[in-house]
Amino acid sequence: MNILIIAAIVGVLALVFALYKASFVGKQDEGSDRMKEIAGHIHDGAMAFLKREYRSLIIFVVALFIILGIGISFKTAVCFLIGALFSVCAGYIGMNVATKANVRTANAAYQHGMGKALDIAFSGGAVMGLCVVGLGIIGISILYYIFQDANIITGFSLGASSIALFARVGGGIYTKAADVGADLVGKVEAGIPEDDPRNPAVIADNVGDNVGDVAGMGADLFESYVGALLSVITLGVVSHAEAGVSYGIGIAAVGILASVVSMFFVRGDKNPQKALNMGTYIASIITIIVSAILANHFFGDLKFFIPVIVGVCVGLIISKITEYYTADQYKPVRHIAKESVTGDSTNIIAGLSVGMMSTVGPIIVLAIGIILAYNLSGGTTEAIDGLYGISLAAVGMLATTASTIAVDAYGPIADNAGGIAEMCELPEEVREITDSLDSVGNTTAAIGKGFAIGSAALTALSLFVSYIQTTGLTGIDISKPAVIAGTFIGGMLPFAFSALTMSAVGNAAGAMIDEVRRQFKEIPGIMEGKAAPEYAKCVDISTGAALKEMIVPGMIAVIVPILVGVLIGTEALGGLQAGALITGVLMAIFMSNAGGAWDNAKKYIEGGAHGGKGTVAHKAAVTGDTVGDPFKDTSGPSLNILIKLITVVSLVFAPLFIHFGGILL
Amino acid sequence: MNILIIAAIVGVLALVFALYKASFVGKQDEGSDRMKEIAGHIHDGAMAFLKREYRSLIIFVVALFIILGIGISFKTAVCFLIGALFSVCAGYIGMNVATKANVRTANAAYQHGMGKALDIAFSGGAVMGLCVVGLGIIGISILYYIFQDANIITGFSLGASSIALFARVGGGIYTKAADVGADLVGKVEAGIPEDDPRNPAVIADNVGDNVGDVAGMGADLFESYVGALLSVITLGVVSHAEAGVSYGIGIAAVGILASVVSMFFVRGDKNPQKALNMGTYIASIITIIVSAILANHFFGDLKFFIPVIVGVCVGLIISKITEYYTADQYKPVRHIAKESVTGDSTNIIAGLSVGMMSTVGPIIVLAIGIILAYNLSGGTTEAIDGLYGISLAAVGMLATTASTIAVDAYGPIADNAGGIAEMCELPEEVREITDSLDSVGNTTAAIGKGFAIGSAALTALSLFVSYIQTTGLTGIDISKPAVIAGTFIGGMLPFAFSALTMSAVGNAAGAMIDEVRRQFKEIPGIMEGKAAPEYAKCVDISTGAALKEMIVPGMIAVIVPILVGVLIGTEALGGLQAGALITGVLMAIFMSNAGGAWDNAKKYIEGGAHGGKGTVAHKAAVTGDTVGDPFKDTSGPSLNILIKLITVVSLVFAPLFIHFGGILL
Repeated sequence: MNILIIAAIVGVLALVFALYKASFVGKQDEGSDRMKEIAGHIHDGAMAFLKREYRSLIIFVVALFIILGIGISFKTAVCFLIGALFSVCAGYIGMNVATKANVRTANAAYQHGMGKALDIAFSGGAVMGLCVVGLGIIGISILYYIFQDANIITGFSLGASSIALFARVGGGIYTKAADVGADLVGKVEAGIPEDDPRNPAVIADNVGDNVGDVAGMGADLFESYVGALLSVITLGVVSHAEAGVSYGIGIAAVGILASVVSMFFVRGDKNPQKALNMGTYIASIITIIVSAILANHFFGDLKFFIPVIVGVCVGLIISKITEYYTADQYKPVRHIAKESVTGDSTNIIAGLSVGMMSTVGPIIVLAIGIILAYNLSGGTTEAIDGLYGISLAAVGMLATTASTIAVDAYGPIADNAGGIAEMCELPEEVREITDSLDSVGNTTAAIGKGFAIGSAALTALSLFVSYIQTTGLTGIDISKPAVIAGTFIGGMLPFAFSALTMSAVGNAAGAMIDEVRRQFKEIPGIMEGKAAPEYAKCVDISTGAALKEMIVPGMIAVIVPILVGVLIGTEALGGLQAGALITGVLMAIFMSNAGGAWDNAKKYIEGGAHGGKGTVAHKAAVTGDTVGDPFKDTSGPSLNILIKLITVVSLVFAPLFIHFGGILL
Repeated sequence: MNILIIAAIVGVLALVFALYKASFVGKQDEGSDRMKEIAGHIHDGAMAFLKREYRSLIIFVVALFIILGIGISFKTAVCFLIGALFSVCAGYIGMNVATKANVRTANAAYQHGMGKALDIAFSGGAVMGLCVVGLGIIGISILYYIFQDANIITGFSLGASSIALFARVGGGIYTKAADVGADLVGKVEAGIPEDDPRNPAVIADNVGDNVGDVAGMGADLFESYVGALLSVITLGVVSHAEAGVSYGIGIAAVGILASVVSMFFVRGDKNPQKALNMGTYIASIITIIVSAILANHFFGDLKFFIPVIVGVCVGLIISKITEYYTADQYKPVRHIAKESVTGDSTNIIAGLSVGMMSTVGPIIVLAIGIILAYNLSGGTTEAIDGLYGISLAAVGMLATTASTIAVDAYGPIADNAGGIAEMCELPEEVREITDSLDSVGNTTAAIGKGFAIGSAALTALSLFVSYIQTTGLTGIDISKPAVIAGTFIGGMLPFAFSALTMSAVGNAAGAMIDEVRRQFKEIPGIMEGKAAPEYAKCVDISTGAALKEMIVPGMIAVIVPILVGVLIGTEALGGLQAGALITGVLMAIFMSNAGGAWDNAKKYIEGGAHGGKGTVAHKAAVTGDTVGDPFKDTSGPSLNILIKLITVVSLVFAPLFIHFGGILL
C-alpha cells in the first residue's frame, strides 16, 4: 500500500520542518545574563519533571509490556512500547523547545516588538505540533505496513494513552499544585507580587504552564490522533479494504501538509489573534478541498467526503461554543461577574450553573454530527460504511492537529515570556507586548480545550465502534441488566476520577505550601533578595507529589475495564465504555467551561467591572477562579484521557475478554 | 382477581388509619394565642402555596388531558386525570396535617416533654405517608381491575409524575428562595436572628420546609410508588399472568400493613433516633417475611422472593452510604470542615469532591442489585422473568414507603416546631427538645434523600424495561449511532435541568430579597416589633417566582423525549432514557450528598470544631452550605422527578412513536 509509505514520508517531512523551526528558535538571542539564568531554571525544572515522570513511567510501561506480551501477543507489546516511546519523544522535544522559546520571545518583544515575538512563540508551539503528528503518522503507517493487522497496532495506541495518562493527569496535578503554592504563600502570606523571583515556587509555577499546557495537551492530542488513525484503519479495512485505509491515512497526510503551509501565514505585528485564526482556517480549507479530491480518487464519488466536513465542522462549532461560554464579551461570564457582587456563594452557583448549561450545545452538535457522519456515508443501508464514516469524522477533525497544537502551545510560551520579563524587570512596554500575546493565549487555550474534548469524544466513539467490530458482538443491548450495570459503573468512573484528581491537587498543593513556608523561614535573606531560594526543591516536591497522587486514578482507569470485561463480559464492558464516554464528555465540558468562565469573570472584574479589585465582587471572583483552576486544568482535561484510555484498554484486551469474559455470570 | 380488591381494601384501611392519626393530631392543644397566630400564618401560607400551585397545574393537566385523549386514548386520559387528582389529594391532606402538627409539637414539648412531642410530630408525618400509599394502591388496583390493561393505567402514573414535577421542582425552588431571602436580608443585612417574627420572610421560610420536604418528598415517592406498581403489573402479566400481578400487588399491600403495625412502635422519650429506626426495621422485617410466604403461595418456590430482599437491601445500603457521606461523625464531612480552615475555595473543592466520590458506593450497589435481581429470578434462562425480578426489587424497596415518608416528613414538622418555639419565645428547655428532635430530622432527611434517589432509579429502570416490552423492541443497541446520539442527549438533560433549577433559585431569591428589603423600608415600626410585616406578600412572591421559574425545566422534561421519539425513533428514545437515567442518578447523588455534607460541615464547625463561629473556617463553611442548599433541596431531588418523568412520558406516548417514530431518519 503506497499510501502508507507516502504518509510516513509526510511524517518525516513534518519532523524535518519541526527541526527547522526548532533551530530557528534556538538561533534567537536569549537576552541578558539574568534572563538566561531565570530561563535556565524553568528549562531545567521542566526537564527535571519530565525525567522524573519518565522514570516512574518505566515501571508502568515494563509491567504493561510483560502483561501484553504474555496475555495478548508479543507483537502488540512491541507496538505498545513504540507508541509509548514516540509519545515520550514528542513530549520531550516539544517541551525542550517550548522552554527555550519563552525567554527568546521575551527578548524579541524587548528588542524587536510584537511581530518577532509572535513568530518565536508560535514557532516554539509549532515544533510540538509537528512532532506529534509526524511521529503519530510514522508510527501508525509503518507498523501497519509491517504487521498488516489493525488488532496488533492497537498496542501503539495503548502506548500513546499510557503516556497521555501520566502527562495529562500528573501534569495537571503538578501545574495546579505549583500555582496554588506560589499564590497562597507568596502572594497572600508573604505579600510579594506574582512572578517575583524571591518566591521559591515561582519557577515551579512557570514550569507548570509548560508541563500542563504543552506536554499535557500534546500527549492528549497525540493519543486522539493515533486513536483516530487506528480506528479508521480498523473500520476502513472492513468497509472498503485497501481503499478504506488509504483514504483515511491520506486525509491525515494532507492535513499535515496543509498545517505546514498554514504556518507560513501566521505572522504580523498588529493582531496576533487574527494571525493565529488565519493559520487555522487555511489549514482547514486546504484539508477539506484535497479530501474531496481524494474521495473522488479512491471511491469515485463524494459519499465519504461528507463525514470529513462533518468532523471539521463539529470541531469548529464546539470550539466556538466553548468561546461563547468562557470569553468575557458574552453573557455567561458577565452573569458570573454580576453574581459575584453578592458574594462567594452566588459566584460559585453561577459558575457551576454556567458550566452545566454549556454542555447543551456541544452535546447536540455531537449527536447531530454522529448521525450525519453515519447516515450520509450510507450507514442506513450498510452499517459498516456508516461506522467507517464516524471514524472519518474523527480523522477529519484531527487532520489539522499540528496547527491546533501550535496555536495552543503558543499560549504557555507567551505566558512564560511575560513571567520572565517580570522577573528580569524588563521595561513596561515589553510586558505590554507579552501581556497582549498572553491574553490571546487564554482564548486559544479555552478553544483548544473544547477541541481536545470534541476530538476525545469522537476518537473514543470510533474506538468503541472498533471494539464492537473486534469482539464480533452484534450490538450492545443496554436493556440487558448486565449491560445497564456496566453502563452505570462506566458512568460513575468520571465522577470518581474527577473527585480523586481534585483531591490530588489539594494534597500536592499542601506539600508545596509547606515547602515554600519552610524556605521563607529557614533561608536567611530570602525576602531581601540577597539569598536565592531553592527553586529546584519546589519543582522536585511538586513533581513527586503529582506523580504519587496520580497512581490511584490512573490504576482505576486501567483496572476497572479489565475487571468488568473479565467478570461480567464483553457486552457489559461495551456498556461501561458507553457510560464512561457519555458522562466523561459531559463532565469534561462542564468542568473545563466552568473553570474557564470563572477565570475570565475574575479578569473581567479586575478590568474594572463591578468596582474592580479590592471589592467583595473581586474577592468572590477570586474564590471562583481558585475552584475553577483544578476544574479546567486538572480534572476536566484528565477526563479526555480517561475516556480514550478506557476504550483503548478494552480494545487491546478484547481477545482476553472473548476467551475468559463473564466468568461471574 | 381477588388480590386487587384486597389491595384496594388495604388502601382504604391505610386512609382510615391516616384519618385516625390526623384526628389525634387535631385534638392536641395548640397552646397560647401567639402560637396559634404564628402557626396560623404558616398553615395559611402553605395552603396558599398549594392552591396557587394547583391553579397553575390545571392548565398543564387540561392540556395534557386533551393531548392524551386525542393522541393516545380517552381511557388513558381519564387515568391520567385520576392520577393527578390522587397525588393532589395526598399532598393537600399531608400538608394540612403537617402544618397543624408543628405548633402542637411545640406545645407538647412545652407542656409534656419529648415523648409526646415525638408522638405528635411522627403522627403528622404518618398521615402523609399513609395517604400516599393508600391512594397509590387504590388507584392502581381499581383502575387495573376495571381496564385490565397495563398500557391504559400508565396514564395514572403520568398523572402522578406531573404533580410530582410541580411539587418537587416548584417546591424546591420555593423553599430555597424563601430561605435565602430570609437569611440574606434578615440575618445578614438587618442583623436579626433566625426565626425572628420581625422578618417578613420568616413565615415563607417555615412554609418552605413543608412545601419542599413534606409535599415535595410525598409527591416524589407517590410517583415512585405508583411507577413501581405499574411496572410490576406490566412485566408480571407477561411473565406469569395473574400470579405475576397478584404477587407484586400483594407485596405492596403487605408493606402497607407492616408500616401501620410499625407505627405503634415509634415512641419513647429518650432517644427519638432509635424510636424512628425501630419503626423502619419492623416494617421491613414483616414485609420480607410475608413476601416469602406469598412467593411460596403464588409460585410454589422462593425464586421471586429474592429480588424483594435485593430491593430492600439496596434501599437500606444506599441510605447507609448516604449517611456516611453526610453525617458529621464520619470522615467526609470532617474533611470538608478541615478544608474550610484555608478558606472558601478549599471548602467548595472539598465539598464537590466528596459529592462526586459519594456516587461510587450507591452505583456499585445498584449495579450489583440489578444483576442479582435479574439473574436470581431466572433472567439468564428466561429474560422476562429477570425483568419481572427487577420490577419486584423496586416494589420491595418501596413496599414500606408509608413508614419511610412518616419518618421523613417528621423532620420538617420538628423543624417548624422549633421555629414556632423561637418566635413565641417559649422557654429554653422547649427549644432544646425541639432542637434534638430536629437534629434527628436532619439525619433522617439525608437518609430519606438517599432512599428517594434509589427508588427513583429502580422505578425508572423498571419503567424503562416496560417501555421496551411495550414498544416491542428486541433491545436498545447502543452501538447504533442514532441510539448513542439519543443517549448523549438524554445524558445531557440532567445537566441542563440542574443548571436551570439552580439559576431558578437565584432568580426567585432575587425577587424575595427585593420584597423583604421593601417591607423593611416602607413599613414603619417593623424593626421595633410594633408593626406586623406582610408575611402573606412574601409567601405570594416566592410562590409566583417558583412557579414561573419551573416552566422551562418542566417543559424540557416533557417535550424533549417526545421530540426524540417522533424525530429519531423508539430505539433512540430508549437510549435517551438510559442516558438520562445514568447521569440523572449520578448527578442526584452527587448534588444531594455534597449539599448534605456541606450543611453538616457547617454545623460541625458551629459545634466548636476548628474554632467555631466567627472564624475563617466558619465563614467558608457558610459559603459551602449556601452553595449546597440548591444542590440538596432543589436540583438534586428534582432529578428524581426528571428521570421518572422521562420514562413515564416515553411509556405513555409509546403508541405514538411506534406509528410515527423516526420521521427524520
